[in-house]
Amino acid sequence: MRAAIFNGPHDIQVGDRPDPVINDPTDAIVRVILGSVCGSDLWYYRGLSPHALGPIGHEFVGVVEEVGSDVRTLAEGDMVVAPFTFCDGTCANCVAGWPSNCINGGSFGNRGIDGGQGERVRSPFADATLVKVPGTGRSDDVLRSLVTLSDVMCTGHHAAVSGGVRPGHVVAVVGDGAVGLCAVIAAKRMGAGRIISLSRNPDRQKLAREFGATDVVPERGEAATDAIMAMTGGVGVDAALECVGTGESMKTAFSIARVGSIVGAVGAPHDVEVPIDVVIFRNVGLRGGVSPVRRYIPDLLPDVLEGRINPGRVFDFETDLEHLIDGYVAMDERRAIKSLVRVATAA
Amino acid sequence: MRAAIFNGPHDIQVGDRPDPVINDPTDAIVRVILGSVCGSDLWYYRGLSPHALGPIGHEFVGVVEEVGSDVRTLAEGDMVVAPFTFCDGTCANCVAGWPSNCINGGSFGNRGIDGGQGERVRSPFADATLVKVPGTGRSDDVLRSLVTLSDVMCTGHHAAVSGGVRPGHVVAVVGDGAVGLCAVIAAKRMGAGRIISLSRNPDRQKLAREFGATDVVPERGEAATDAIMAMTGGVGVDAALECVGTGESMKTAFSIARVGSIVGAVGAPHDVEVPIDVVIFRNVGLRGGVSPVRRYIPDLLPDVLEGRINPGRVFDFETDLEHLIDGYVAMDERRAIKSLVRVATAA
Repeated sequence: MRAAIFNGPHDIQVGDRPDPVINDPTDAIVRVILGSVCGSDLWYYRGLSPHALGPIGHEFVGVVEEVGSDVRTLAEGDMVVAPFTFCDGTCANCVAGWPSNCINGGSFGNRGIDGGQGERVRSPFADATLVKVPGTGRSDDVLRSLVTLSDVMCTGHHAAVSGGVRPGHVVAVVGDGAVGLCAVIAAKRMGAGRIISLSRNPDRQKLAREFGATDVVPERGEAATDAIMAMTGGVGVDAALECVGTGESMKTAFSIARVGSIVGAVGAPHDVEVPIDVVIFRNVGLRGGVSPVRRYIPDLLPDVLEGRINPGRVFDFETDLEHLIDGYVAMDERRAIKSLVRVATAA
Repeated sequence: MRAAIFNGPHDIQVGDRPDPVINDPTDAIVRVILGSVCGSDLWYYRGLSPHALGPIGHEFVGVVEEVGSDVRTLAEGDMVVAPFTFCDGTCANCVAGWPSNCINGGSFGNRGIDGGQGERVRSPFADATLVKVPGTGRSDDVLRSLVTLSDVMCTGHHAAVSGGVRPGHVVAVVGDGAVGLCAVIAAKRMGAGRIISLSRNPDRQKLAREFGATDVVPERGEAATDAIMAMTGGVGVDAALECVGTGESMKTAFSIARVGSIVGAVGAPHDVEVPIDVVIFRNVGLRGGVSPVRRYIPDLLPDVLEGRINPGRVFDFETDLEHLIDGYVAMDERRAIKSLVRVATAA
């Protein structure tokens, strides 16, 4: 099969890899329809984070081609969404609702596990990992939104859940990348009354507003804090969602969080320092992390299928597998919010 | 009146101060019955934290002597518990349930506000601040427990609430000071199934067990982590309560917290670094801070009055106002867990 291979920073090529086969009776083989490039893929592409050489890509939807003898809930022909990690569904962390921290799990597209930027993927623990998409005849818009459930939409949702967003809340979203934009969708979906998007990019501002942002703050750093404190009568926001992962974005999130609120943080951290004095003396909590995607997909799937949310609109660049690198470069150069990879057709 | 005066590190004296008078119609004057020395008092006593010169002490119970013309819920002769901070009850933070972060509030025994280590205290915003103790004829044991509601018992409770303790949980309490011991009481009261106290002091271990600890871990640092991970099948605890405030104690709390749990932290932070990688990659949250004491007292008061909890047992040293310094020294030298100051009799 054809699949992307990471050979090192700035060196991603599409080449031939062996077709995956059923190794364990709980495996399934998935033919990938749509994949995508994650913001976190850029970290190793740029050489800023380590990553095993080999297959890559952890966001995809596809169709089941073959299942192992112990697979009960899936059959050939089923369309499935893959969370970015596989999980056994039975370990202490899975049972407690944290499948992305499965003790026996791992990430697609890393350490030799097939990636979603390729034609086929072997999924371990298929029943526990893959989520079947009910129905037939999905539009391309729906398919594009389904692939965001692999990671980015569920990650934005995790920011909102972790930040404790409730109906009527004033929510600020720090970060206008795909995750931040999905956090706007999530906050809106959970009933936030006012959603402030921190964004200075006109295209992203526009999409944030279409997703539900009521206010846009283009300032950064202390100027952003001043603006948001002024907008909230000096009190701060009910939930600050940190969707970047830098020291400055975390600092901004804590600086605008009202007393007793929670910073919902999902950005992969790079040089982040948590202001412990704000935690203790203002009772501002910190929750979040790697999204428990497998737990969230069933909650969000009906809203995608029925068109109530359209997170697939974060894809503003599209390519095919052979031209995958164009999707990386477009995001690396910030010409694209997020790149879709059309691997095959659904039929 | 007689009252303690902070003249600088290691220099606390009991001297004469003017009797407080009603300044504002919302004030009340309280005659102090019992006060106590807080672990946080030791920080400025030792010269490790700044503190305004002047009156000190923020934990006390007393009897109302006089009320201003706008005070509605209190009258002369009422016994009251004072939270360690006063609050207006109407600001955005108070209304949201965070009275210790009142925008117009402050701490008793700091910046010239009368302290509980003295004969009388003027309380601003008396209706919003002071909690009337119903009934009459309280035993000395109950009085001793009432004074812990000013701070230490409510602070231990805040650790447990912040850590999300639920019935059946495995809870670890990092710290065997008065706050840690009260956190054991709180965890037990909230239904924890197993309570692990990290303590190497035999007297404190004994009290922790009497308060509800089912296990005691005397190790520290990595050895403590190893012991607790072994006790929990490698999974970690459902809630880790950080009741010290040092870098090591925070590190230990995060190292034993299971995936998806919350570290409930109430220790005043000194050189604390939050391990952001544990937050993000293990979904371990951090909540806590300055306890919203005024909100908690009504919840805990019936349990104290009816003897279901006995946090006053943390007092293992007693002195009177004139010998207050003995209470500081006993705690400074770790001869005492916590010192009671008997200022007057209740009659």
